Formats: sequence, structure tokens, C-alpha cells
Amino acid sequence: MDLKRYNKKSKIVKPVLLLLLLFSLSTFAQIQRVEPPFWYAGMHNPELQILFYGKNIAENEVAVSNGISIKSIEKTENPNYLFVTIDTKGVAAQEILFSFSKNKKVTFTRKYALKQRRDNSALRKSYDASDMIYLIMPDRFANGNPKNDSQKALAEKADRNNSSGRHGGDIEGIIRNLDYLQELGVTALWPTPLCEDNDPQGSYHGYGQSDVYKIDPRYGTNEDYLKLAAELHKRGMKLIMDYVTNHWGSQHWMINDLPTYDWIHQFPGYAQTNYRMATQFDTNASQIDAKMCMDGWFVKSMPDLNQSNPLVLNYLIQNAIWWIEYADLDGFRVDTYSYNDKVGIAKWTKAITDEYPDFNIVGEIWMHDQAQMAYWQKDSKLGAIQNYNSHLPSVMDFTLHNATSVAFNENQADWDKGLMRIYDNFTNDFLYPNPDNILTFVENHDTQRFNEIYKKDFKKYQMAIALIATVRGIPQLYYGSEIGMAGNKNEGDGAIRLDFPGGWNGDSNNAFTKKGRTAEQQQFFDFTSKLFQWRKTNEAVHLGKMTHYIPENNVYVYFRFTNKKTVMVVVNNNLTSKNIETKRFQESIKDFKVGKDVLSGIAIDLKKEFTLEAQSVLILELE
Amino acid sequence: MDLKRYNKKSKIVKPVLLLLLLFSLSTFAQIQRVEPPFWYAGMHNPELQILFYGKNIAENEVAVSNGISIKSIEKTENPNYLFVTIDTKGVAAQEILFSFSKNKKVTFTRKYALKQRRDNSALRKSYDASDMIYLIMPDRFANGNPKNDSQKALAEKADRNNSSGRHGGDIEGIIRNLDYLQELGVTALWPTPLCEDNDPQGSYHGYGQSDVYKIDPRYGTNEDYLKLAAELHKRGMKLIMDYVTNHWGSQHWMINDLPTYDWIHQFPGYAQTNYRMATQFDTNASQIDAKMCMDGWFVKSMPDLNQSNPLVLNYLIQNAIWWIEYADLDGFRVDTYSYNDKVGIAKWTKAITDEYPDFNIVGEIWMHDQAQMAYWQKDSKLGAIQNYNSHLPSVMDFTLHNATSVAFNENQADWDKGLMRIYDNFTNDFLYPNPDNILTFVENHDTQRFNEIYKKDFKKYQMAIALIATVRGIPQLYYGSEIGMAGNKNEGDGAIRLDFPGGWNGDSNNAFTKKGRTAEQQQFFDFTSKLFQWRKTNEAVHLGKMTHYIPENNVYVYFRFTNKKTVMVVVNNNLTSKNIETKRFQESIKDFKVGKDVLSGIAIDLKKEFTLEAQSVLILELE
Repeated sequence: MDLKRYNKKSKIVKPVLLLLLLFSLSTFAQIQRVEPPFWYAGMHNPELQILFYGKNIAENEVAVSNGISIKSIEKTENPNYLFVTIDTKGVAAQEILFSFSKNKKVTFTRKYALKQRRDNSALRKSYDASDMIYLIMPDRFANGNPKNDSQKALAEKADRNNSSGRHGGDIEGIIRNLDYLQELGVTALWPTPLCEDNDPQGSYHGYGQSDVYKIDPRYGTNEDYLKLAAELHKRGMKLIMDYVTNHWGSQHWMINDLPTYDWIHQFPGYAQTNYRMATQFDTNASQIDAKMCMDGWFVKSMPDLNQSNPLVLNYLIQNAIWWIEYADLDGFRVDTYSYNDKVGIAKWTKAITDEYPDFNIVGEIWMHDQAQMAYWQKDSKLGAIQNYNSHLPSVMDFTLHNATSVAFNENQADWDKGLMRIYDNFTNDFLYPNPDNILTFVENHDTQRFNEIYKKDFKKYQMAIALIATVRGIPQLYYGSEIGMAGNKNEGDGAIRLDFPGGWNGDSNNAFTKKGRTAEQQQFFDFTSKLFQWRKTNEAVHLGKMTHYIPENNVYVYFRFTNKKTVMVVVNNNLTSKNIETKRFQESIKDFKVGKDVLSGIAIDLKKEFTLEAQSVLILELE
Repeated sequence: MDLKRYNKKSKIVKPVLLLLLLFSLSTFAQIQRVEPPFWYAGMHNPELQILFYGKNIAENEVAVSNGISIKSIEKTENPNYLFVTIDTKGVAAQEILFSFSKNKKVTFTRKYALKQRRDNSALRKSYDASDMIYLIMPDRFANGNPKNDSQKALAEKADRNNSSGRHGGDIEGIIRNLDYLQELGVTALWPTPLCEDNDPQGSYHGYGQSDVYKIDPRYGTNEDYLKLAAELHKRGMKLIMDYVTNHWGSQHWMINDLPTYDWIHQFPGYAQTNYRMATQFDTNASQIDAKMCMDGWFVKSMPDLNQSNPLVLNYLIQNAIWWIEYADLDGFRVDTYSYNDKVGIAKWTKAITDEYPDFNIVGEIWMHDQAQMAYWQKDSKLGAIQNYNSHLPSVMDFTLHNATSVAFNENQADWDKGLMRIYDNFTNDFLYPNPDNILTFVENHDTQRFNEIYKKDFKKYQMAIALIATVRGIPQLYYGSEIGMAGNKNEGDGAIRLDFPGGWNGDSNNAFTKKGRTAEQQQFFDFTSKLFQWRKTNEAVHLGKMTHYIPENNVYVYFRFTNKKTVMVVVNNNLTSKNIETKRFQESIKDFKVGKDVLSGIAIDLKKEFTLEAQSVLILELE
């Protein structure tokens, strides 16, 4: 294990310590892992539980230097682990020393750094509804460094011809294209997991992690990840880490030498989750169904972590906090949130937000019912029915996704079809404790591609993206949407995770540049970029209130407004143009006289009826 | 107006009062209506607001006899109305006298009875999950008295050839067939409204009432209604009144001489509701949409009552209480509950249940989302989000109805198809404050006929009816289900409200008797009757707890249990037989060894795998 990567700025070693250091180094082999590899002084929670891993390490007594108190030393059934909890309350940033002894004789020592936190680290701001989040799969975005595509130490080698294989995209590739993202209007970046995933197959998605303290070398180094954060921050953009609490990959080093039998859920060994998340609150659910949902494995290659084991939970909490401090993160997205141990994941989330009160975390709660999703948002009144509070600030609007996936192919304004689906979604906002903090999206890395469903119909794309850019919540784009990328999920996940054109040397089509884009790509890009650049400027579509009107004849009208600004959105989901009578919207239009369309610049007289083209959308700033 | 009908047992008039009485009668013409026509002593709410209606009656002063205090006298913009509120606190049952005077000279008087309540009237029991409710449309059930089919004073005459016309069914017809209902296993009867509906067309459904203190003479008299209640009670059965708070018919006498302009919602005159009930809690809803939903008329012939007007509200409360006391009712079903003024209807419901704490009231909340329906049930945590409490004890399980309407045609156990739809419905029970008090049904008078959807497939009928007989809630049958009645709603409402065969003299098919039934009708009847007779005997399917298991391969297994009894239900919604492994259900089977099917009598060894026939259901009492 290469600790250098954590400790780039090594201090000048004072001569007086040199001997000690040499002694330590001589016994280094005794310790194979120390996690977290270092920590920070002045955390809200002063307790730090350090995992020491080494052959029969549990046979040792442990002491710590500098008057720091050890609160507990936990041993497990596996003698290769020691969990040492120290109290850092009031302890300044410094290097401390752990001594390991047998029969009162020190056998080896280990230095441990408590570092200085960044200014205002605890109160760091996070992403919110003023942002636009761009989701990428790093392996499929851009290959900035072809030399790191395959790694000797890692099983899966690059193979761009394999749709489920490693294609070579990396952090350097992202950094090189930050101009592109900025031009598009992106303000926050959500890459799927970047930590090491040493699964022999399909490792490119990164959800089967083998080392959660280390960026996968095929993406770059930990320093590269820090550079990505810094480059984003330089541009006023944010970095969101995709965190996985529910499971690790089967190649995770701890899975291969489990600290405790119950570190993961065993039946014994593997059993698959039933994926029926309603069992987690269903008062009629059988215990076995609820248990199998929560404890069963997501897939066979991903052992299911047992967050009800305090050692596991603490490990996950500290790892998450470590990344926030280390990489200066702006937020989390949490994978398969509702598959975790329900109580454990709430503790995890609370621990993170206790450290960082303004830190936003969006959980993947992939359900098809607003009440069931709202249950999981922090301070939910539905959760409270069962005395449950997940503490999760944000959830994903999967029901809106369901609606946008069919509504634009429905041209009849039936009782519950077409734009009624969109409208209906927002009628249940009262169920959410915080509807402004919901991720809105038309596709992600697990869903059918929007431009596949709608066959790259630009008009439908415009309506849908204008919608997620202007309704309440945090809009999220999935890489490639903005250039009309399609791909059929029925052909496998690889088809919805195609390489971004231009991300590889020699790509004939380079969609990163205006010059390289096809006319169709440019059409999609221009619209998207214009929309999201405008979105940055209008606070009404960030956290303004929303008033919507029941769609009539497949025309949906809604307003976003603050005391200062009002935006009126009109969507016509018909194959014919429609006349819009403004009288009905008087309570929202008030004394405004003119609406200026932010896309076309056309001014609409609000005192009169006006005509909206077939399958089109107007985003009017009212004046 | 014929007051005799309310006062059959008139007391012997004492000679001393005779003169006064004659005097009163001589001025009787001054008062055309008194409502309520009489009242009861000793009510929880001692205030009684009596409406006096007569030409320019508001020009009079009013006094009352026997030391009773008048709390208020309200006049409206229409001089033909006087609303006199008296305080009956501590007042014994007696006859009191109202004197009307001008210039301090009594011009006429009116006697008014405060009657004795039945013993234990306030604490009357009501219907609950131990009942089976049978819904009939009285005009279409049985014509007991052909002489009352048409009435001189009422516009619409009998015409059995008109599917939207009056067919002549009546209360006498119901009473004559109570043996039939009892044999079927009915324990509570819900007839659609029986009060006078003098609409010139389509009056047979009774929802456009013209006099809410009077049974429609085409159904019989008020005394006939009392007889129906008494005959039901004699058999241990219950009578549920279908109460309509939201609207009256356009021929209601008050509509033709409105007490106040705002007695009904006017725009001016008619405007239709938008039927979008989500506007009632949607925090994004525009005010105009919410107002139009609540205040718009359900249909043009039914003026929408304004329950935010205290006079209207009180009129509706007293009318409802009057019927409970007068007819000794066991419960209400309330029409179009969520279309009422939201605050007003909650006050109405609370007033009823304040008088009768155990009185059950089920409201028609026809929505397609459990959270939206649960919002309206008494003490809902979802309502509480908006500080709203409807006080409505029971709602209708329309989402279960949606599920049963398609599930049995879906033979593939897809992610959310087939029996998953049924299972999914119950996963949201945690949203309901009281899931045991929800009406379950596969059809009613407004929906497509179950046996139309499933083309009288007896196997599908068995699965569905066994389901509503054994899941939580109060099962409700719609007349004719039990003999396989079909009829296509797409051909008009008349088609789902066909005459019950045998209800009319000369009907060639008489399904009321075993002899008269076709073989197919007998098959349906035998099953239904056996099921619901059994249901009476097993407390586990009344208020027992429910544990269900995620359907696997379109087989759904659930248990109902109390400390004493356990029932296991297994539904196989496949076209092939299925083997059932009992091991998975161990936490519910516990130490039980044998399950006896209540329908076939077959005993199943619970320690072994057993086979369930294609498209069949087992209801096992565990021993």
C-alpha cells in the first residue's frame, strides 16, 4: 500500500526523530493497512476509530503518544484486525505515534497524522436547486491519459470493443473537458464511483469497489481526483462523489479477510435481495421479505455490507468524511440508498450531516410512488409515522422520470395521460418535506436513454429538458443527452453508456467542440447550453415557489416566482398549435404585461390570447 | 307538505289546547316548511336551528314556549326564511310551541316536537370489518309495489324500457328479498339514495335530491324506510344511508327559492368542477383550480352546496342526525366526499361523530393514489401535514379496485403486474390511520362491472371475491355480482345498473330463488354465499392482523390472524397449477400442522409442499 499518495507534502523529518522513524520502518511490515490513513483535527465528532490491519496484529497492546486518550480497543474474531478508538477532542493538528507492544515491550510503532482542516470546512456549501448536475460515467467520457487504461495490478484490462469492458476514460479526460461542461451550463459534476473496482468483469461502472480509500489507477491517482475538485472549484463548479454504502466488490481486500463473519450479510454466503423496497415500511410485510430485501445482495459480485455492525457503520462514516475533507467535496450521491440497513444508513447520513450541516446528499430511492420516496427524505412526516428519520436531505424524482418517459408520446389529453402525468407528479409535493431538494432528470446511467425513447425528436427533447430546468428541484443531465445521444438499454447497459464522441484520440466525431459536432448534435447542444446558461441567472427557477394549472388539452402552464422575479412556462404537447387564453392565469400573471421567451427572445403580450406552436415550450420572464 | 308522515303516533290532543290548535291550523298557510320537522331531546349538541319557511315569514317576531331559550334568530336576504336557534340543554322530550307575531300580536303559532331518543342511541354500534356490505340501486333491485312506480306529483314516470329511466324498484322490493340477502351472507345494506329526486330525467339514481326529509314516493314512504331498518335489525343486519352533502338536485325546493345567493356556488349560475381533487392538498395548485374543483358543480343538474355557509352546513348536519335518530341508522356512505368544501365537510363529519362516537361513515374519495386517499381518513398523518383532519372514519379502496380490475387478466408475474398489483396496494397501508376501516370492493354502481371485464370467468371471480373477503377492510358487494351479472359501462350507466332478475313480476329468470337461477347464476351464488357465511364465523378475517409475502410467479400468499385464529390464503393467478413450498411462510404458519380449505373442505399438510390448481384460491383455516 502506497501511503505517499495521501501525504504528498511530507514534513522535513527532524533529526531527533530519525532513529524512531527508522525503527518504525523496520517494523512496517507488521501493518499492512491503516484506515483512515490520516485524519483531521477539530472534527465535530472527536472520536476516531482507526483500523490497523496486519498478520495477528490483535496480539499486541496499543498505546498512543502526546497524551491522547484511547477510548477503546476492539478486537474481532479475526486476529488480523485492531480497531483503536481515540479521542481527538481539543487535540491540535499534529503527528501522533501508535506503539504496539507484546509483554510490555514495544514491537513496532506507527505514525499517524491529524491534519489541519480547511477554513470553514464544516460549514462548506453544497449543491442545491440553483445548480445543474451533470452525471458522467468516467470510463465512457474522455480518455485523457491512454497510458493508465490498463494496470498490471488490476484484473480487467482496457477493451473498447467490449460494451461491458473498460474503455479508458479517466479523470484527466474530465479535467480536459471542463470548458465544455462550463459552456454547457453545468455547475456540479457527479461522476459515478472512481474508487478502485478490481472486479474481473464489468468493473467500469465502479460500484463494486475493492479499495474505498484509493482512486482506481485506471482513472488516475488520488491527487488527480484532488486536482479535479480544485479545477472545478476554480470555475465555481462543484464535485459530487457517488458514495456506495450498501456493498463492496467481491475483490475488496476486507472481503477476502473478513474482520467478522457479520461484516457482510451471509445466508451463509450469497443470497440475492428481492428488490422489493416497500417491505421496509410495509406494516403487512413478513419479516423474511423485509430481511431479504435489506440484507440480500444487490448482485452476486457485490457482498452486502452490514451497517447494523457498529464497526462497519463507523468505517463507512469515516471513509465518507475522509473523502469530504481530503478532496474538498461539495456533496454526495448515495447508491441504492434504500437497500441499506434502514437504521444503519440513517445513522450514517446523520453522522455526515452532523459534521457538515449544509452538505447535500441525494439518495437513490428508485421507487414508483411519491409517498414511498418521500418516506426517505429527511424529516419526512411519512417516516415519522414509524418513528423513522433517514436524515437524507435529497431524493430522486423517479416518478417524474416515469412521467417524462412516456408523456411526450401521448398526444391526447386523456384523464391521466400526456402532460397530466407531469402535472400529477407535482400534486403530491406536499408529501415531501423539501420538494426543492429533489433531483429531477429525464435519464441516468441506469435508465433507458431519453433520446432512444423519443427517437432523437428534438421537439420532445426541448419540452422535457425545459421542464426539468424550470420545475422545482435540482436538474440533472446525463452525459450525452445534450448532443442527442441514444442507445437502447434492452441491448445491455453498455448501450446507454456509450463513449462520448471525441473523448478518444482518433474519434471521427468530436462533440466536445463546435467544429467537431454534427448539425444534429449542435442543435441539441445549442438549446441545452442556452437553457442552462439562462437558468443560472434567474433565481425564480432555483428556489422560487411554484404554481401550476391543470393541463387543458395537453397544454401545461406553470409559474415559478420569488418576490423579485416571475417565470411563466407554457408547454404544448400537441401535434397542432394551441391558443393560450391568459385570463385563467391572472392570479400568477398579476400586473405583468409582457413575457419574454428566454429561448427565442420573442415578447408575448400577456393581456391577449397568444398562439403556441405544436410541441413547443415557452419560458417567459415576466416584465 | 304532509307532516303526518313524520308524526304517525300523534298524541291525543288535550281539550285545553284545542282552541290554540285550531288557531294554529287557521294560520298554517303561513308556514310551508319546518325543517327539521321535529327533533330529539338530550342530544350531545343542545343547539337546534329550525328553518321556518313561508311567504315573508321573516317579517315576524318569534317566541318559544316552556321557558326554552332562543339563542339566535337569523334572517337572510330572502324574507321567506327564518332560522331560529334554540337551546335544548336539559330540556325533556315534549311538545313546544313557536309563536310568530307582528307588532307584538301573535299572528300564528307552530307546535314542535322534541322526541325521546331510543335507549343508547348515541352509542349505537355501526358497521365495521366484520360486516359484508351489499350495495343496491333500489330502482333496479326489486319492484315490491308496482302501484308506486309513477307519482302524479313527480316528474319522471316509470319506463322500464329506458335504461336511464325509472324502473320501479322500491323499498318493499328490498324488504321482500331480505331472506335472499341473508342467505348470501350480507350483514349490512347500502342502498343508493332513497330521498325524493324530482329531476325530470335520470332521477332513478337518486343523487339529485329534491327533498332530503322525504323518501321518494316511488320507493315508498318514510315509514317504509323505517320498516326496512327494523326488518334489517330484526335479522341482525345493518342499514347504511347514502348521504349527499355536496349537492342537491335542481328541483330541490330550496334551490327554487334560495335562502341566500351563496347557499350554492354560483359563477354566477353553473360552472362545472374540474374533478381534479388533488388541488385540495396540492401545495403547487393555483387558487382558481382548487376553487373550481371544490365549488364547481358535479353535473349541471346538481347545484353545488356551499358548506362554508354556516346555515347550509348546519342544515346538512341536522338533516343527517335527524335520519340517524329517526330511522335508527347504522352508518353512512357519503357521496363525492372530496368535492365538498374541505373545511365544511370536516365540520359536518365531526358533528355527526361527536353525536355518535361509534358511527361509521365511509366517504367516496375516488382517487388513484393511496397517499391521496389516506389524506382524507380521520386522524391522517398526511392531512396533519396541512393541519387538516377530515374526521372521516372510512374511505374506499379505489386503488385495490384498480388492481383487481386488471390483475386477473395478467398471467405473467412481471415486476408490477398480475398479483403484484394486489400486493403493492397493501404495501402502502402504513399511510392509512386505520386500514381496517377501508371499504374493499371489485365494483360499484359507478364502475365497470367485474363480470364484464372478466367475461363471467368464474375462476377469476372466485379469486377476486375471496380476496376482498379475506384481506383487511370491509368487503362490499354490488348487487348482481353474486349471480355473475355483467353489463358494459361504455354503453352507459344503465348497463351497469340492470334490473336484478326476478325483481319484477313476470321476469322469466328469477335469481332470488335457487329454483329460478340459471346453472351459471347458481354457481356464482353458491360460492359467494358459502364464502360470506363462513366469513361471519372467523374473526381473523375481520380485524385480525395481516402478514403478506411478496408474490412469486403470480402466486400470492397472505395470512390474517388473531391470538386465537389464523387464516392462510393462497391465490394462484396462473394458467397452470403451482407447487407451494410452505417453508418460506414459517413465521406465519408457526406450529400449525394442517390447513383446512373453507370452500372445499380439503385438508392441506402444512409441513409439505402442496399443489394449487391453475387460477384458484385456497382459504385455509390453520389447525
